[in-house]
Amino acid sequence: MSELVRFGVSIDSKLINRFDDLIGKKGYATRSEAIRDMIRDMLVEQEWESGEHETVGTITIVYNHHTRELEHALTEMQHQSFHQIISTLHVHLDAHNCLEVLVVKGKSQDISTIADKLIGTKGVKHGKLAMTTTGKELT
Amino acid sequence: MSELVRFGVSIDSKLINRFDDLIGKKGYATRSEAIRDMIRDMLVEQEWESGEHETVGTITIVYNHHTRELEHALTEMQHQSFHQIISTLHVHLDAHNCLEVLVVKGKSQDISTIADKLIGTKGVKHGKLAMTTTGKELT
Amino acid sequence: MSELVRFGVSIDSKLINRFDDLIGKKGYATRSEAIRDMIRDMLVEQEWESGEHETVGTITIVYNHHTRELEHALTEMQHQSFHQIISTLHVHLDAHNCLEVLVVKGKSQDISTIADKLIGTKGVKHGKLAMTTTGKELT
Amino acid sequence: MSELVRFGVSIDSKLINRFDDLIGKKGYATRSEAIRDMIRDMLVEQEWESGEHETVGTITIVYNHHTRELEHALTEMQHQSFHQIISTLHVHLDAHNCLEVLVVKGKSQDISTIADKLIGTKGVKHGKLAMTTTGKELT
Repeated sequence: MSELVRFGVSIDSKLINRFDDLIGKKGYATRSEAIRDMIRDMLVEQEWESGEHETVGTITIVYNHHTRELEHALTEMQHQSFHQIISTLHVHLDAHNCLEVLVVKGKSQDISTIADKLIGTKGVKHGKLAMTTTGKELT
Repeated sequence: MSELVRFGVSIDSKLINRFDDLIGKKGYATRSEAIRDMIRDMLVEQEWESGEHETVGTITIVYNHHTRELEHALTEMQHQSFHQIISTLHVHLDAHNCLEVLVVKGKSQDISTIADKLIGTKGVKHGKLAMTTTGKELT
Repeated sequence: MSELVRFGVSIDSKLINRFDDLIGKKGYATRSEAIRDMIRDMLVEQEWESGEHETVGTITIVYNHHTRELEHALTEMQHQSFHQIISTLHVHLDAHNCLEVLVVKGKSQDISTIADKLIGTKGVKHGKLAMTTTGKELT
Repeated sequence: MSELVRFGVSIDSKLINRFDDLIGKKGYATRSEAIRDMIRDMLVEQEWESGEHETVGTITIVYNHHTRELEHALTEMQHQSFHQIISTLHVHLDAHNCLEVLVVKGKSQDISTIADKLIGTKGVKHGKLAMTTTGKELT
Protein backbone atom coordinates (compact mmCIF):
# COMPACT_ATOMS: atom_id res chain seq x y z
CA MET A 1 0.00 0.00 0.00
CA SER A 2 0.98 3.53 -0.65
CA GLU A 3 1.80 5.88 2.22
CA LEU A 4 3.43 9.22 2.77
CA VAL A 5 7.10 9.09 3.78
CA ARG A 6 9.66 11.78 4.45
CA PHE A 7 13.35 11.93 3.59
CA GLY A 8 16.04 14.53 4.11
CA VAL A 9 18.13 16.29 1.45
CA SER A 10 21.42 17.90 2.39
CA ILE A 11 22.33 20.83 0.23
CA ASP A 12 24.43 23.96 0.19
CA SER A 13 22.55 27.00 1.53
CA LYS A 14 23.34 29.15 -1.55
CA LEU A 15 21.99 26.49 -3.87
CA ILE A 16 18.73 26.07 -1.99
CA ASN A 17 18.25 29.86 -1.87
CA ARG A 18 18.52 30.11 -5.65
CA PHE A 19 16.17 27.13 -5.98
CA ASP A 20 13.63 28.79 -3.67
CA ASP A 21 13.68 31.93 -5.84
CA LEU A 22 13.17 29.97 -9.03
CA ILE A 23 10.33 27.74 -7.83
CA GLY A 24 8.66 30.80 -6.26
CA LYS A 25 8.54 32.37 -9.72
CA LYS A 26 7.10 29.17 -11.13
CA GLY A 27 4.32 29.24 -8.56
CA TYR A 28 5.27 26.30 -6.32
CA ALA A 29 3.97 26.53 -2.77
CA THR A 30 6.57 24.19 -1.26
CA ARG A 31 9.97 22.64 -2.06
CA SER A 32 8.46 19.17 -1.67
CA GLU A 33 5.95 19.85 -4.44
CA ALA A 34 8.67 21.14 -6.81
CA ILE A 35 10.87 18.12 -6.10
CA ARG A 36 8.02 15.65 -6.51
CA ASP A 37 7.33 17.27 -9.89
CA MET A 38 10.95 16.84 -11.00
CA ILE A 39 10.87 13.21 -9.89
CA ARG A 40 7.60 12.50 -11.72
CA ASP A 41 8.98 14.20 -14.84
CA MET A 42 12.01 11.92 -14.81
CA LEU A 43 9.78 8.83 -14.38
CA VAL A 44 7.45 9.82 -17.23
CA GLU A 45 10.48 10.35 -19.47
CA GLN A 46 11.65 6.85 -18.64
CA GLU A 47 8.20 5.37 -19.38
CA TRP A 48 8.36 6.83 -22.90
CA GLU A 49 11.88 5.54 -23.56
CA SER A 50 10.92 1.86 -23.45
CA GLY A 51 8.35 2.18 -26.26
CA GLU A 52 6.21 -0.64 -24.82
CA HIS A 53 4.76 1.01 -21.74
CA GLU A 54 1.07 1.99 -21.83
CA THR A 55 0.92 5.74 -21.57
CA VAL A 56 -0.93 8.86 -22.74
CA GLY A 57 0.05 11.61 -25.15
CA THR A 58 -1.69 14.65 -26.57
CA ILE A 59 -1.15 15.49 -30.23
CA THR A 60 -1.75 19.10 -31.28
CA ILE A 61 -2.08 19.98 -34.96
CA VAL A 62 -2.73 23.34 -36.65
CA TYR A 63 -4.07 23.37 -40.21
CA ASN A 64 -6.02 25.38 -42.75
CA HIS A 65 -9.43 23.76 -43.08
CA HIS A 66 -9.70 25.09 -46.65
CA THR A 67 -6.95 22.73 -47.79
CA ARG A 68 -8.68 20.35 -50.18
CA GLU A 69 -9.39 16.88 -48.78
CA LEU A 70 -7.42 17.58 -45.60
CA GLU A 71 -10.26 17.28 -43.11
CA HIS A 72 -11.36 14.09 -44.78
CA ALA A 73 -7.82 12.65 -44.66
CA LEU A 74 -7.39 13.55 -41.00
CA THR A 75 -10.73 11.99 -40.10
CA GLU A 76 -9.89 8.80 -42.00
CA MET A 77 -6.55 8.55 -40.24
CA GLN A 78 -8.08 9.09 -36.83
CA HIS A 79 -10.67 6.40 -37.41
CA GLN A 80 -7.96 3.88 -38.22
CA SER A 81 -6.56 4.54 -34.74
CA PHE A 82 -9.89 4.91 -32.95
CA HIS A 83 -8.86 2.31 -30.36
CA GLN A 84 -6.10 4.63 -29.17
CA ILE A 85 -7.68 8.06 -29.72
CA ILE A 86 -9.87 8.76 -26.70
CA SER A 87 -11.15 12.21 -27.50
CA THR A 88 -10.57 15.27 -29.64
CA LEU A 89 -10.97 19.02 -29.16
CA HIS A 90 -11.35 21.33 -32.13
CA VAL A 91 -10.76 25.11 -31.99
CA HIS A 92 -11.45 27.61 -34.79
CA LEU A 93 -8.42 29.88 -34.49
CA ASP A 94 -9.53 32.26 -37.24
CA ALA A 95 -11.40 32.17 -40.56
CA HIS A 96 -8.85 29.75 -42.00
CA ASN A 97 -6.87 28.07 -39.24
CA CYS A 98 -8.01 25.20 -37.05
CA LEU A 99 -6.34 23.63 -34.07
CA GLU A 100 -7.09 20.08 -33.07
CA VAL A 101 -5.88 18.31 -29.93
CA LEU A 102 -6.14 14.53 -29.73
CA VAL A 103 -5.79 12.63 -26.48
CA VAL A 104 -4.20 9.28 -27.30
CA LYS A 105 -3.68 6.27 -25.02
CA GLY A 106 -1.55 3.25 -25.90
CA LYS A 107 2.04 2.04 -26.20
CA SER A 108 4.35 5.01 -26.46
CA GLN A 109 5.71 3.87 -29.82
CA ASP A 110 2.18 3.57 -31.26
CA ILE A 111 1.31 7.07 -30.05
CA SER A 112 4.49 8.39 -31.70
CA THR A 113 3.55 6.70 -34.98
CA ILE A 114 0.06 8.24 -34.95
CA ALA A 115 1.63 11.65 -34.22
CA ASP A 116 4.14 11.27 -37.09
CA LYS A 117 1.39 10.37 -39.55
CA LEU A 118 -0.89 13.27 -38.57
CA ILE A 119 1.89 15.87 -38.42
CA GLY A 120 3.28 14.64 -41.76
CA THR A 121 -0.05 15.00 -43.58
CA LYS A 122 0.07 17.57 -46.39
CA GLY A 123 -1.72 20.71 -45.24
CA VAL A 124 -0.96 20.33 -41.54
CA LYS A 125 1.10 23.44 -40.78
CA HIS A 126 2.48 22.47 -37.41
CA GLY A 127 2.18 19.66 -34.95
CA LYS A 128 3.50 18.59 -31.57
CA LEU A 129 3.32 15.51 -29.41
CA ALA A 130 3.19 16.11 -25.64
CA MET A 131 4.29 12.99 -23.80
CA THR A 132 2.44 12.54 -20.53
CA THR A 133 1.11 9.61 -18.52
CA THR A 134 -1.90 7.55 -17.45
CA GLY A 135 -1.15 8.76 -13.93
CA LYS A 136 -1.68 5.23 -12.60
CA GLU A 137 1.85 4.73 -11.38
CA LEU A 138 2.42 8.31 -10.33
CA THR A 139 1.07 8.76 -6.86
CA MET B 1 0.42 38.27 -51.96
CA SER B 2 1.37 34.70 -51.33
CA GLU B 3 2.22 32.40 -54.23
CA LEU B 4 3.86 29.04 -54.74
CA VAL B 5 7.54 29.16 -55.69
CA ARG B 6 10.10 26.46 -56.34
CA PHE B 7 13.77 26.28 -55.45
CA GLY B 8 16.46 23.66 -55.93
CA VAL B 9 18.50 21.89 -53.24
CA SER B 10 21.80 20.26 -54.13
CA ILE B 11 22.67 17.32 -51.96
CA ASP B 12 24.75 14.18 -51.92
CA SER B 13 22.87 11.14 -53.28
CA LYS B 14 23.60 8.99 -50.21
CA LEU B 15 22.25 11.64 -47.90
CA ILE B 16 19.01 12.09 -49.81
CA ASN B 17 18.52 8.31 -49.94
CA ARG B 18 18.74 8.05 -46.17
CA PHE B 19 16.41 11.04 -45.85
CA ASP B 20 13.88 9.40 -48.20
CA ASP B 21 13.90 6.25 -46.04
CA LEU B 22 13.35 8.20 -42.85
CA ILE B 23 10.53 10.44 -44.10
CA GLY B 24 8.87 7.41 -45.70
CA LYS B 25 8.71 5.82 -42.24
CA LYS B 26 7.26 9.03 -40.82
CA GLY B 27 4.51 8.96 -43.45
CA TYR B 28 5.51 11.90 -45.64
CA ALA B 29 4.25 11.69 -49.24
CA THR B 30 6.90 14.02 -50.70
CA ARG B 31 10.27 15.57 -49.84
CA SER B 32 8.78 19.03 -50.25
CA GLU B 33 6.24 18.36 -47.52
CA ALA B 34 8.92 17.05 -45.14
CA ILE B 35 11.13 20.06 -45.80
CA ARG B 36 8.28 22.56 -45.41
CA ASP B 37 7.54 20.92 -42.05
CA MET B 38 11.15 21.32 -40.89
CA ILE B 39 11.10 24.97 -41.99
CA ARG B 40 7.80 25.68 -40.22
CA ASP B 41 9.13 23.99 -37.09
CA MET B 42 12.18 26.26 -37.07
CA LEU B 43 9.96 29.34 -37.51
CA VAL B 44 7.59 28.36 -34.71
CA GLU B 45 10.59 27.82 -32.42
CA GLN B 46 11.79 31.33 -33.23
CA GLU B 47 8.32 32.81 -32.53
CA TRP B 48 8.42 31.36 -29.03
CA GLU B 49 11.94 32.62 -28.32
CA SER B 50 10.98 36.30 -28.44
CA GLY B 51 8.38 36.00 -25.66
CA GLU B 52 6.26 38.83 -27.12
CA HIS B 53 4.85 37.17 -30.23
CA GLU B 54 1.16 36.20 -30.19
CA THR B 55 1.01 32.45 -30.44
CA VAL B 56 -0.86 29.35 -29.30
CA GLY B 57 0.07 26.59 -26.87
CA THR B 58 -1.69 23.55 -25.49
CA ILE B 59 -1.20 22.71 -21.83
CA THR B 60 -1.82 19.09 -20.79
CA ILE B 61 -2.21 18.22 -17.11
CA VAL B 62 -2.89 14.86 -15.43
CA TYR B 63 -4.28 14.84 -11.89
CA ASN B 64 -6.28 12.85 -9.38
CA HIS B 65 -9.69 14.46 -9.09
CA HIS B 66 -10.00 13.13 -5.52
CA THR B 67 -7.28 15.48 -4.35
CA ARG B 68 -9.00 17.88 -1.98
CA GLU B 69 -9.70 21.33 -3.39
CA LEU B 70 -7.69 20.64 -6.55
CA GLU B 71 -10.50 20.95 -9.07
CA HIS B 72 -11.61 24.14 -7.41
CA ALA B 73 -8.07 25.57 -7.48
CA LEU B 74 -7.59 24.66 -11.14
CA THR B 75 -10.91 26.23 -12.10
CA GLU B 76 -10.09 29.42 -10.18
CA MET B 77 -6.73 29.68 -11.89
CA GLN B 78 -8.22 29.12 -15.31
CA HIS B 79 -10.82 31.83 -14.76
CA GLN B 80 -8.11 34.34 -13.92
CA SER B 81 -6.65 33.66 -17.36
CA PHE B 82 -9.96 33.32 -19.20
CA HIS B 83 -8.89 35.90 -21.79
CA GLN B 84 -6.13 33.57 -22.94
CA ILE B 85 -7.72 30.16 -22.42
CA ILE B 86 -9.86 29.46 -25.47
CA SER B 87 -11.14 26.02 -24.68
CA THR B 88 -10.61 22.96 -22.52
CA LEU B 89 -11.00 19.21 -23.02
CA HIS B 90 -11.43 16.89 -20.07
CA VAL B 91 -10.85 13.12 -20.18
CA HIS B 92 -11.59 10.62 -17.40
CA LEU B 93 -8.56 8.33 -17.65
CA ASP B 94 -9.73 5.96 -14.91
CA ALA B 95 -11.63 6.07 -11.63
CA HIS B 96 -9.09 8.49 -10.16
CA ASN B 97 -7.07 10.14 -12.89
CA CYS B 98 -8.18 13.02 -15.10
CA LEU B 99 -6.45 14.59 -18.06
CA GLU B 100 -7.18 18.13 -19.07
CA VAL B 101 -5.92 19.90 -22.18
CA LEU B 102 -6.18 23.68 -22.39
CA VAL B 103 -5.78 25.58 -25.64
CA VAL B 104 -4.20 28.93 -24.78
CA LYS B 105 -3.65 31.94 -27.05
CA GLY B 106 -1.52 34.97 -26.16
CA LYS B 107 2.06 36.15 -25.81
CA SER B 108 4.36 33.17 -25.53
CA GLN B 109 5.69 34.30 -22.14
CA ASP B 110 2.15 34.61 -20.76
CA ILE B 111 1.28 31.12 -21.97
CA SER B 112 4.44 29.78 -20.28
CA THR B 113 3.46 31.48 -17.02
CA ILE B 114 -0.03 29.96 -17.10
CA ALA B 115 1.53 26.54 -17.80
CA ASP B 116 4.01 26.92 -14.90
CA LYS B 117 1.22 27.81 -12.46
CA LEU B 118 -1.05 24.92 -13.49
CA ILE B 119 1.73 22.33 -13.60
CA GLY B 120 3.07 23.56 -10.25
CA THR B 121 -0.28 23.19 -8.47
CA LYS B 122 -0.22 20.64 -5.65
CA GLY B 123 -1.99 17.49 -6.82
CA VAL B 124 -1.18 17.88 -10.51
CA LYS B 125 0.88 14.75 -11.24
CA HIS B 126 2.31 15.71 -14.58
CA GLY B 127 2.06 18.54 -17.06
CA LYS B 128 3.44 19.59 -20.42
CA LEU B 129 3.28 22.68 -22.58
CA ALA B 130 3.21 22.08 -26.36
CA MET B 131 4.34 25.20 -28.19
CA THR B 132 2.52 25.65 -31.47
CA THR B 133 1.24 28.60 -33.50
CA THR B 134 -1.77 30.66 -34.60
CA GLY B 135 -0.97 29.44 -38.11
CA LYS B 136 -1.47 32.98 -39.45
CA GLU B 137 2.08 33.48 -40.61
CA LEU B 138 2.66 29.89 -41.65
CA THR B 139 1.34 29.47 -45.15
CA MET C 1 28.86 32.39 3.60
CA SER C 2 27.91 29.05 2.20
CA GLU C 3 27.06 26.19 4.55
CA LEU C 4 25.39 22.80 4.35
CA VAL C 5 21.71 22.74 5.30
CA ARG C 6 19.14 19.98 5.38
CA PHE C 7 15.48 20.01 4.45
CA GLY C 8 12.76 17.35 4.37
CA VAL C 9 10.74 16.18 1.40
CA SER C 10 7.41 14.42 1.92
CA ILE C 11 6.56 11.99 -0.81
CA ASP C 12 4.48 8.93 -1.52
CA SER C 13 6.34 5.68 -0.80
CA LYS C 14 5.62 4.21 -4.27
CA LEU C 15 6.98 7.30 -5.98
CA ILE C 16 10.21 7.33 -4.00
CA ASN C 17 10.69 3.59 -4.66
CA ARG C 18 10.49 4.12 -8.40
CA PHE C 19 12.83 7.10 -8.10
CA ASP C 20 15.34 5.00 -6.13
CA ASP C 21 15.32 2.37 -8.91
CA LEU C 22 15.87 4.93 -11.62
CA ILE C 23 18.69 6.86 -9.93
CA GLY C 24 20.34 3.55 -9.03
CA LYS C 25 20.53 2.72 -12.72
CA LYS C 26 21.97 6.14 -13.43
CA GLY C 27 24.71 5.54 -10.88
CA TYR C 28 23.73 7.96 -8.10
CA ALA C 29 24.97 7.00 -4.64
CA THR C 30 22.33 8.99 -2.73
CA ARG C 31 18.97 10.67 -3.25
CA SER C 32 20.46 13.98 -2.12
CA GLU C 33 23.00 13.88 -4.94
CA ALA C 34 20.33 13.11 -7.55
CA ILE C 35 18.11 15.92 -6.28
CA ARG C 36 20.98 18.42 -6.14
CA ASP C 37 21.72 17.53 -9.77
CA MET C 38 18.11 18.17 -10.82
CA ILE C 39 18.17 21.51 -8.98
CA ARG C 40 21.46 22.56 -10.58
CA ASP C 41 20.13 21.56 -14.00
CA MET C 42 17.10 23.80 -13.54
CA LEU C 43 19.32 26.71 -12.46
CA VAL C 44 21.70 26.32 -15.42
CA GLU C 45 18.70 26.28 -17.76
CA GLN C 46 17.51 29.55 -16.24
CA GLU C 47 20.98 31.12 -16.61
CA TRP C 48 20.88 30.43 -20.35
CA GLU C 49 17.36 31.82 -20.79
CA SER C 50 18.34 35.39 -19.89
CA GLY C 51 20.94 35.65 -22.67
CA GLU C 52 23.05 38.11 -20.67
CA HIS C 53 24.47 35.84 -17.97
CA GLU C 54 28.15 34.89 -18.20
CA THR C 55 28.30 31.18 -18.74
CA VAL C 56 30.16 28.36 -20.50
CA GLY C 57 29.23 26.17 -23.45
CA THR C 58 30.98 23.48 -25.44
CA ILE C 59 30.49 23.42 -29.19
CA THR C 60 31.10 20.10 -30.97
CA ILE C 61 31.48 20.01 -34.75
CA VAL C 62 32.16 17.07 -37.08
CA TYR C 63 33.55 17.79 -40.54
CA ASN C 64 35.52 16.35 -43.42
CA HIS C 65 38.94 17.98 -43.37
CA HIS C 66 39.26 17.42 -47.14
CA THR C 67 36.52 19.97 -47.80
CA ARG C 68 38.28 22.79 -49.62
CA GLU C 69 38.98 25.87 -47.52
CA LEU C 70 36.97 24.54 -44.59
CA GLU C 71 39.78 24.31 -42.05
CA HIS C 72 40.90 27.77 -43.01
CA ALA C 73 37.36 29.17 -42.66
CA LEU C 74 36.88 27.52 -39.25
CA THR C 75 40.20 28.85 -38.00
CA GLU C 76 39.39 32.37 -39.21
CA MET C 77 36.03 32.27 -37.48
CA GLN C 78 37.52 31.02 -34.24
CA HIS C 79 40.11 33.77 -34.21
CA GLN C 80 37.42 36.41 -34.52
CA SER C 81 35.97 35.05 -31.28
CA PHE C 82 39.27 34.31 -29.56
CA HIS C 83 38.20 36.30 -26.47
CA GLN C 84 35.44 33.79 -25.84
CA ILE C 85 37.03 30.55 -27.06
CA ILE C 86 39.16 29.24 -24.22
CA SER C 87 40.45 26.03 -25.72
CA THR C 88 39.90 23.49 -28.46
CA LEU C 89 40.28 19.72 -28.75
CA HIS C 90 40.70 18.07 -32.11
CA VAL C 91 40.12 14.35 -32.79
CA HIS C 92 40.84 12.49 -36.03
CA LEU C 93 37.80 10.20 -36.25
CA ASP C 94 38.96 8.44 -39.42
CA ALA C 95 40.88 9.22 -42.62
CA HIS C 96 38.34 11.90 -43.54
CA ASN C 97 36.33 12.96 -40.54
CA CYS C 98 37.44 15.31 -37.78
CA LEU C 99 35.71 16.24 -34.57
CA GLU C 100 36.46 19.49 -32.84
CA VAL C 101 35.19 20.59 -29.43
CA LEU C 102 35.47 24.25 -28.44
CA VAL C 103 35.09 25.43 -24.87
CA VAL C 104 33.51 28.89 -25.00
CA LYS C 105 32.95 31.37 -22.16
CA GLY C 106 30.83 34.50 -22.42
CA LYS C 107 27.26 35.74 -22.51
CA SER C 108 24.94 32.90 -23.40
CA GLN C 109 23.63 34.71 -26.46
CA ASP C 110 27.18 35.29 -27.77
CA ILE C 111 28.03 31.62 -27.31
CA SER C 112 24.87 30.68 -29.23
CA THR C 113 25.86 33.01 -32.08
CA ILE C 114 29.35 31.49 -32.32
CA ALA C 115 27.77 28.01 -32.34
CA ASP C 116 25.29 28.98 -35.09
CA LYS C 117 28.08 30.35 -37.27
CA LEU C 118 30.34 27.31 -36.89
CA ILE C 119 27.56 24.75 -37.32
CA GLY C 120 26.20 26.66 -40.34
CA THR C 121 29.57 26.66 -42.16
CA LYS C 122 29.48 24.75 -45.44
CA GLY C 123 31.27 21.44 -44.95
CA VAL C 124 30.45 21.04 -41.26
CA LYS C 125 28.40 17.85 -41.20
CA HIS C 126 26.97 18.08 -37.72
CA GLY C 127 27.21 20.34 -34.72
CA LYS C 128 25.85 20.68 -31.22
CA LEU C 129 26.02 23.25 -28.46
CA ALA C 130 26.09 21.88 -24.90
CA MET C 131 24.95 24.56 -22.45
CA THR C 132 26.77 24.32 -19.14
CA THR C 133 28.06 26.77 -16.54
CA THR C 134 31.07 28.55 -15.03
CA GLY C 135 30.26 26.63 -11.87
CA LYS C 136 30.77 29.82 -9.80
CA GLU C 137 27.21 30.08 -8.56
CA LEU C 138 26.62 26.35 -8.29
CA THR C 139 27.90 25.20 -4.96
CA MET D 1 29.16 5.73 -55.26
CA SER D 2 28.22 9.07 -53.89
CA GLU D 3 27.42 11.95 -56.22
CA LEU D 4 25.78 15.34 -56.06
CA VAL D 5 22.12 15.42 -57.07
CA ARG D 6 19.56 18.22 -57.15
CA PHE D 7 15.88 18.19 -56.29
CA GLY D 8 13.19 20.85 -56.24
CA VAL D 9 11.12 22.03 -53.28
CA SER D 10 7.82 23.82 -53.87
CA ILE D 11 6.93 26.24 -51.13
CA ASP D 12 4.84 29.30 -50.45
CA SER D 13 6.73 32.55 -51.11
CA LYS D 14 5.95 34.02 -47.66
CA LEU D 15 7.28 30.92 -45.94
CA ILE D 16 10.55 30.89 -47.88
CA ASN D 17 11.03 34.62 -47.21
CA ARG D 18 10.77 34.08 -43.46
CA PHE D 19 13.12 31.08 -43.74
CA ASP D 20 15.66 33.18 -45.67
CA ASP D 21 15.61 35.81 -42.91
CA LEU D 22 16.11 33.23 -40.19
CA ILE D 23 18.95 31.29 -41.83
CA GLY D 24 20.62 34.61 -42.73
CA LYS D 25 20.76 35.43 -39.01
CA LYS D 26 22.18 31.99 -38.30
CA GLY D 27 24.97 32.60 -40.82
CA TYR D 28 24.02 30.17 -43.59
CA ALA D 29 25.32 31.13 -47.04
CA THR D 30 22.70 29.16 -48.99
CA ARG D 31 19.31 27.50 -48.52
CA SER D 32 20.80 24.18 -49.62
CA GLU D 33 23.30 24.25 -46.77
CA ALA D 34 20.59 25.03 -44.21
CA ILE D 35 18.38 22.24 -45.51
CA ARG D 36 21.23 19.71 -45.62
CA ASP D 37 21.93 20.60 -41.97
CA MET D 38 18.31 19.97 -40.98
CA ILE D 39 18.38 16.64 -42.82
CA ARG D 40 21.65 15.56 -41.18
CA ASP D 41 20.28 16.57 -37.78
CA MET D 42 17.23 14.36 -38.29
CA LEU D 43 19.46 11.42 -39.34
CA VAL D 44 21.79 11.79 -36.34
CA GLU D 45 18.77 11.86 -34.04
CA GLN D 46 17.59 8.60 -35.58
CA GLU D 47 21.04 6.99 -35.16
CA TRP D 48 20.89 7.70 -31.42
CA GLU D 49 17.36 6.33 -31.02
CA SER D 50 18.32 2.74 -31.89
CA GLY D 51 20.90 2.45 -29.09
CA GLU D 52 23.02 -0.01 -31.08
CA HIS D 53 24.47 2.24 -33.77
CA GLU D 54 28.16 3.17 -33.48
CA THR D 55 28.33 6.88 -32.96
CA VAL D 56 30.17 9.68 -31.15
CA GLY D 57 29.21 11.88 -28.22
CA THR D 58 30.96 14.56 -26.21
CA ILE D 59 30.43 14.63 -22.47
CA THR D 60 31.02 17.95 -20.69
CA ILE D 61 31.36 18.04 -16.90
CA VAL D 62 32.02 20.99 -14.56
CA TYR D 63 33.36 20.25 -11.09
CA ASN D 64 35.30 21.69 -8.18
CA HIS D 65 38.72 20.03 -8.16
CA HIS D 66 38.98 20.59 -4.39
CA THR D 67 36.23 18.06 -3.78
CA ARG D 68 37.93 15.22 -1.94
CA GLU D 69 38.65 12.12 -4.03
CA LEU D 70 36.69 13.48 -6.99
CA GLU D 71 39.52 13.68 -9.49
CA HIS D 72 40.61 10.22 -8.51
CA ALA D 73 37.08 8.84 -8.93
CA LEU D 74 36.65 10.49 -12.33
CA THR D 75 39.98 9.14 -13.54
CA GLU D 76 39.12 5.63 -12.34
CA MET D 77 35.79 5.74 -14.11
CA GLN D 78 37.33 6.98 -17.33
CA HIS D 79 39.92 4.21 -17.34
CA GLN D 80 37.19 1.59 -17.06
CA SER D 81 35.80 2.96 -20.33
CA PHE D 82 39.14 3.66 -21.98
CA HIS D 83 38.09 1.69 -25.08
CA GLN D 84 35.35 4.22 -25.75
CA ILE D 85 36.95 7.45 -24.50
CA ILE D 86 39.13 8.74 -27.32
CA SER D 87 40.41 11.95 -25.82
CA THR D 88 39.85 14.50 -23.08
CA LEU D 89 40.26 18.27 -22.79
CA HIS D 90 40.64 19.92 -19.40
CA VAL D 91 40.07 23.64 -18.74
CA HIS D 92 40.76 25.51 -15.49
CA LEU D 93 37.72 27.81 -15.31
CA ASP D 94 38.86 29.56 -12.11
CA ALA D 95 40.71 28.76 -8.90
CA HIS D 96 38.15 26.10 -8.00
CA ASN D 97 36.17 25.05 -11.04
CA CYS D 98 37.31 22.70 -13.78
CA LEU D 99 35.62 21.79 -17.03
CA GLU D 100 36.37 18.51 -18.73
CA VAL D 101 35.14 17.43 -22.16
CA LEU D 102 35.41 13.77 -23.16
CA VAL D 103 35.06 12.59 -26.73
CA VAL D 104 33.46 9.14 -26.62
CA LYS D 105 32.93 6.67 -29.46
CA GLY D 106 30.80 3.53 -29.24
CA LYS D 107 27.21 2.32 -29.19
CA SER D 108 24.90 5.18 -28.33
CA GLN D 109 23.54 3.38 -25.28
CA ASP D 110 27.06 2.78 -23.93
CA ILE D 111 27.94 6.44 -24.38
CA SER D 112 24.77 7.40 -22.50
CA THR D 113 25.70 5.06 -19.64
CA ILE D 114 29.19 6.56 -19.35
CA ALA D 115 27.63 10.06 -19.36
CA ASP D 116 25.12 9.11 -16.64
CA LYS D 117 27.87 7.71 -14.41
CA LEU D 118 30.15 10.74 -14.77
CA ILE D 119 27.38 13.32 -14.38
CA GLY D 120 25.97 11.43 -11.38
CA THR D 121 29.30 11.40 -9.51
CA LYS D 122 29.19 13.31 -6.23
CA GLY D 123 30.99 16.64 -6.70
CA VAL D 124 30.23 17.01 -10.40
CA LYS D 125 28.20 20.23 -10.49
CA HIS D 126 26.82 19.98 -13.98
CA GLY D 127 27.10 17.74 -16.99
CA LYS D 128 25.78 17.41 -20.50
CA LEU D 129 25.97 14.83 -23.26
CA ALA D 130 26.08 16.20 -26.82
CA MET D 131 24.97 13.52 -29.29
CA THR D 132 26.83 13.75 -32.55
CA THR D 133 28.14 11.30 -35.14
CA THR D 134 31.15 9.50 -36.61
CA GLY D 135 30.41 11.42 -39.81
CA LYS D 136 30.91 8.23 -41.84
CA GLU D 137 27.38 8.00 -43.13
CA LEU D 138 26.80 11.72 -43.41
CA THR D 139 28.14 12.87 -46.73
